[in-house]
Amino acid sequence: MTVDDAPGFAARGSARDLLRLVATGAAESRADLARLSGLSPSTVSQRVETLIGDGWLREVGEGKSRGGRRPRHLEIPGDGGVIGAIDLGAHHARVATLDLSGHVIASKSMAVEVHDGPEPVLGKLLAAVTELVGSGTGAALRGIGVGVPGPVEHSAGRIVSPSRMPGWNGFDVYRFCTDRVEVPIAVDNDANLMALGEHRSARADLDHAVYVKAGTGIGAGVISGGQLYRGAQGSAGDISHCRVVSADPAPLCSCGNTGCLEAVASGAALVQALAERGIPVTSPADVMRLVDHGDPHATAIVRSAGRYIGEILSVVVNFFNPQAVFIGGLLADCEPLLASMRASLYERCLPLATQTLLIERLSTGVDAGILGAAQLIIDRIIES
Amino acid sequence: MTVDDAPGFAARGSARDLLRLVATGAAESRADLARLSGLSPSTVSQRVETLIGDGWLREVGEGKSRGGRRPRHLEIPGDGGVIGAIDLGAHHARVATLDLSGHVIASKSMAVEVHDGPEPVLGKLLAAVTELVGSGTGAALRGIGVGVPGPVEHSAGRIVSPSRMPGWNGFDVYRFCTDRVEVPIAVDNDANLMALGEHRSARADLDHAVYVKAGTGIGAGVISGGQLYRGAQGSAGDISHCRVVSADPAPLCSCGNTGCLEAVASGAALVQALAERGIPVTSPADVMRLVDHGDPHATAIVRSAGRYIGEILSVVVNFFNPQAVFIGGLLADCEPLLASMRASLYERCLPLATQTLLIERLSTGVDAGILGAAQLIIDRIIES
Repeated sequence: MTVDDAPGFAARGSARDLLRLVATGAAESRADLARLSGLSPSTVSQRVETLIGDGWLREVGEGKSRGGRRPRHLEIPGDGGVIGAIDLGAHHARVATLDLSGHVIASKSMAVEVHDGPEPVLGKLLAAVTELVGSGTGAALRGIGVGVPGPVEHSAGRIVSPSRMPGWNGFDVYRFCTDRVEVPIAVDNDANLMALGEHRSARADLDHAVYVKAGTGIGAGVISGGQLYRGAQGSAGDISHCRVVSADPAPLCSCGNTGCLEAVASGAALVQALAERGIPVTSPADVMRLVDHGDPHATAIVRSAGRYIGEILSVVVNFFNPQAVFIGGLLADCEPLLASMRASLYERCLPLATQTLLIERLSTGVDAGILGAAQLIIDRIIES
Repeated sequence: MTVDDAPGFAARGSARDLLRLVATGAAESRADLARLSGLSPSTVSQRVETLIGDGWLREVGEGKSRGGRRPRHLEIPGDGGVIGAIDLGAHHARVATLDLSGHVIASKSMAVEVHDGPEPVLGKLLAAVTELVGSGTGAALRGIGVGVPGPVEHSAGRIVSPSRMPGWNGFDVYRFCTDRVEVPIAVDNDANLMALGEHRSARADLDHAVYVKAGTGIGAGVISGGQLYRGAQGSAGDISHCRVVSADPAPLCSCGNTGCLEAVASGAALVQALAERGIPVTSPADVMRLVDHGDPHATAIVRSAGRYIGEILSVVVNFFNPQAVFIGGLLADCEPLLASMRASLYERCLPLATQTLLIERLSTGVDAGILGAAQLIIDRIIES
């Protein structure tokens, strides 16, 4: 278990938890924090002083009287700095600046190709963040959270054996970024950050949920016990190489096995399958456009993808019994895919596991990744 | 999330956690408990006094001096009572008495048939527990933990839609037992209790692990963050109706779907498949005997079962990234089954997820269920 996933006292009363209580409006005084966290007033004061000293919190004026001494009001300073966020996909990226409460100030989508290799791609994205910061109010950059579309060795920030990211295997994203910008950096897998962003920003009440990212590749992030769940090696949620039951014929996957979910249901797989039938597509966005225009071949293949995703998720749902399954990424906007994924889940899961299961699109949409990247780096800075 | 699974402060400093620290020998004084739990000395004292008042702990003599006032020694009283445990299978049951530390005092295996229905079966098992208590030292019975081979509505102790348990659907095991014996009762699924027993008694250091029970039926228990994980509806770990990739033809399952793991890899499925080939078997134990005697048909079918279990577990391992997968139940003693399950896992999982994965038999063997049943009721009594 990694430190930030550990259940226990730290999860309810750490400095970052106190900050989050203020950021969400749940607490507006030290007394609120003590009541909500169960910490002693002296421990709350100690942590609040640290947060104030580091510029994360400010204590002003007088709060509402509750009898006795009037509590002072805690708030997150608007001029306390900004957070940078990068969400890198296979063919595009989204960069943003966010305030210390984790709300987006400015964002920008840009075309990039991971095939160009890590140095030019990351260099371009760091420059874009710096530009957004420079065009802002002048508040200082406090740190940058970076999401990448491949497995990340969580403790190190290094990419490990990614599919569809030639030239990135073993690349130390953390080191590269840290060498170029003078602020703290945190790196994680894009699906993990999508899960974290959606959970914290939209439905933080969910204890157990699965967040599937279906874009050029396919993956998932997991929330368990209200926290991002990474598992023993940090690879939890990586369903991309699970074998699909009904894929026939079973195509060869980049991992060397056949019939993997990635090889039959990812955006890249859909492009390849349509191209092999002579239909001129070069990107998952092209496939989505064909579906929008009612192309039967494209729609049929997207329906199959939804069914395959549903088959693998049916094992996940039976085993993990989550409250919700969310789908995000470029393919999530496609109604036929969501419909056939739902059909598969309802057909193959225990009725007990689906009777109250939510199966929905992300409510934070394309912003989920940058919201999660910001949460990751805020957590990391305050922990350290 | 159910109360006893909630991560957070309760998981580290509750009265049951303090008792467990003494039971495992990790703590022998209030000072040890304060140090290990992080609780204040006054909170520790308050909880210890409650445990002493309720007869779970005794404070005696003087402990080792560490300078200053000598700590008094905490221990679990040998005459403080006994715990009853029932582990019911489809064709047999195991009942036991255990001391307040959760060690077995006496146990007994007996033939029972769940097909006989809940009242005669549970009546017989309660009588067997009472008899074991009566033949002991005279210490009073404090409570009984009951494991049953089907889905249990955790909050209520009622059985919900079980396969292979005719007459048990909706039966309120908790109520039936509580009406007959004057002690607290707790009821859970057999696979959950197997997981809890193995985890607490053998490898409590594991944070994330999966425990497959392969007997007449098939199921799994899950440990996450060091706690029994039940999921949103309490059905986590129920992999019995996951569809198996390569089962062809796909047999009809009792749930109305085809190709479920239960229908191709449970002990009951193996008996049926061999019987259909004219091989005279009536129970999973008969199948195991044939394998022991080198019967090629029985061995082939057991190898297939291992492969099917491995196929479903490969999705579970990719998704959940546990440190260990354990197998228990009658079929677990069969080496060809374990070997083909391992082969499937290594073939179909991410290398990152299996590089340090333990794939083993339970080390507590047939006792895992009664050890878990005792832990369940001890936890329940102390919580209440």
